[in-house]
Amino acid sequence: MLPAGWAVTVFSQFMKSLYSMEDGNGPQSFSFLKHELPVRICNIMKEINLLPEKLLQMPSARTVKGWYQQTLEDLLEFEDSDDKCINLNTKFTEQLITIRNRHSNVVETMAQAVLEMRESYEYDQHEENNIQYFLNRFYISRISIRMLINQHTLLFGSAPKTHPRHIGSIDPNTDVVSVVADAYDSAKFLCDQYYLASPDVEIKTINSKDDSNNIHIVYVPSHLYHILFELFKNSMRAVMEHKGPSATDFPKIKVLITKGQQDLTIRMSDEGGGIPRTQIDQLFNYMYTTAPTHLNLVSLPFHLWLYAKYFHGDLTLTSMEGYGTDALIYLKVLSSEANELLPIYNHAVNRHYRANLTVSDWSSPMGGFRSLSLNSSRHF
Amino acid sequence: MLPAGWAVTVFSQFMKSLYSMEDGNGPQSFSFLKHELPVRICNIMKEINLLPEKLLQMPSARTVKGWYQQTLEDLLEFEDSDDKCINLNTKFTEQLITIRNRHSNVVETMAQAVLEMRESYEYDQHEENNIQYFLNRFYISRISIRMLINQHTLLFGSAPKTHPRHIGSIDPNTDVVSVVADAYDSAKFLCDQYYLASPDVEIKTINSKDDSNNIHIVYVPSHLYHILFELFKNSMRAVMEHKGPSATDFPKIKVLITKGQQDLTIRMSDEGGGIPRTQIDQLFNYMYTTAPTHLNLVSLPFHLWLYAKYFHGDLTLTSMEGYGTDALIYLKVLSSEANELLPIYNHAVNRHYRANLTVSDWSSPMGGFRSLSLNSSRHF
Repeated sequence: MLPAGWAVTVFSQFMKSLYSMEDGNGPQSFSFLKHELPVRICNIMKEINLLPEKLLQMPSARTVKGWYQQTLEDLLEFEDSDDKCINLNTKFTEQLITIRNRHSNVVETMAQAVLEMRESYEYDQHEENNIQYFLNRFYISRISIRMLINQHTLLFGSAPKTHPRHIGSIDPNTDVVSVVADAYDSAKFLCDQYYLASPDVEIKTINSKDDSNNIHIVYVPSHLYHILFELFKNSMRAVMEHKGPSATDFPKIKVLITKGQQDLTIRMSDEGGGIPRTQIDQLFNYMYTTAPTHLNLVSLPFHLWLYAKYFHGDLTLTSMEGYGTDALIYLKVLSSEANELLPIYNHAVNRHYRANLTVSDWSSPMGGFRSLSLNSSRHF
Repeated sequence: MLPAGWAVTVFSQFMKSLYSMEDGNGPQSFSFLKHELPVRICNIMKEINLLPEKLLQMPSARTVKGWYQQTLEDLLEFEDSDDKCINLNTKFTEQLITIRNRHSNVVETMAQAVLEMRESYEYDQHEENNIQYFLNRFYISRISIRMLINQHTLLFGSAPKTHPRHIGSIDPNTDVVSVVADAYDSAKFLCDQYYLASPDVEIKTINSKDDSNNIHIVYVPSHLYHILFELFKNSMRAVMEHKGPSATDFPKIKVLITKGQQDLTIRMSDEGGGIPRTQIDQLFNYMYTTAPTHLNLVSLPFHLWLYAKYFHGDLTLTSMEGYGTDALIYLKVLSSEANELLPIYNHAVNRHYRANLTVSDWSSPMGGFRSLSLNSSRHF
């Protein structure tokens, strides 16, 4: 009934063929999405069902599962519809907006489900590994689904266009420095409100790829802004807390943006006192970062990392305890390399959920091992 | 016959009880080592036998295996010996020196075996994973065995003592700044010879743990020197090559050393042009770094990382392509946390060698994933 595989969409597709109006009839993206969205939703629903029963029966987990079921039903109504029909496309677009709104709080609700489980049950390392493995995949799947929906609704919906250059949410000429400056300004506004002061920023660029001074790439500015805004907030908070309420002078947050042949790299360096190495590992572990005590400060990198990963970028944090923290965002210079990263549902996935590799083969507890792996939280 | 478990040795043991002369009779370390060394050697020999047959049958692999067999036989001669006998201890100490010399070239010879296999056979991802998994464990096992042997032979052998403060190879008051400066000087000497110039160094320290200016820890200075010397050579080469032969002015290599409650962190920053993110992943993959074309430049981090890991430290590299590279060495401030990290041979190990998790559950080849995991090279 549903197509077996799914399509990995590259920027050029997002920008061109998928979203062109063909012959004045319905857009190609309608015919693409009416198949692709149910495929992505079915695949991640299969993985939801592989989660530990003690998580699945939590009220918030049932809520999330219900949203996905409803969305699948909504989408399947369009399965055999005539994708040349403009009226149907309008109806489809409205349906996508309903779906997007329905799923707005999926991340928070799933985090709530994990908290509910933690309060109700003991859980072992194997279950924790499976949940971490799932959440990485679930959240990237969600980012991808929202990306598809946003492209369609921005291009064919009735909302006014935000920017003449943008193609949906994509800016083919994203001015990275200006996104950094915008994110700094927004974070500074919040910081000034709360602390009545804020650290300055220093932005430098080095373009070693070509002679131009401008550092532009094809990207989704809202994704990059989201990552940078959260990192700025974290750095500002670290600086203000580290220096204390009586300080009047604060070390700058330094941003260096470099463009090479492959990587566009953004490094944000603060002198906010840093954190111990063992805590860096925990920042990427969902089970730690959903703990209530950590919720405000350190739940960030986990989600931001997935946004960077989605277009084959990366986010790393290195810290020097007693001094400060560097966050590095890696983006692909070539948009042809920045295609979607998607979880694939196959027999390897089943094996991952079954495999119980929690016996340590080293002399120490594995908590100290870095594992910035999308596939698990196993610190091995 | 042999004790089933093995002992994880902490610094305080290395320094005190193990190596004290008890009642004027043979040292406690004799009775400890005559059991402990065969245990460690037997354990790693069991893992050698789990390697792919196409590697084991290479001439260099046979050589390495032969050395371990001979060493085991040599050690077992002391199994039932009277450890109170000073003459026997002298004989044991001489035997340990013979063993250490026999194993001097284990790393190079095992690397040669991998090269021989690469030239003779095709190998699949599963075999590559197993070899990487093995080599991490094998080399840390070797570092640990040499540490035990060195402590004994330095304290009870006839070689003159190098430093009155040192206990064997351990300096209970290692002056980190001075080790950094020594390593820089040695690397600068080589760099000046080859390039007729070299970048300057700038060393800064921040002690946020206490008011003292000195940054001292319990450590093995020779290990730290080894790591730093190789990193300095790499950074200097990067700077000199990046600036080119006509340059007369070179950006400094900047070293920042910070001491917090848990971590002593050494960051070495160069402006040597950096490398793409995808290559950073490969630096820690033995199968890449033993390739002849890479042998000079990038085989370093893999080994250095294991030296840092051995006492529960770490080594990370971050790079900005087109700009430069940061290397961060993490050491434990508290010597009580810096006990040995040792591979454990148990059923989880067997399962690791059997498990074939090479089917990707993501939409992209896994080459782009960081996996700084001691347990495998799987980029998953």
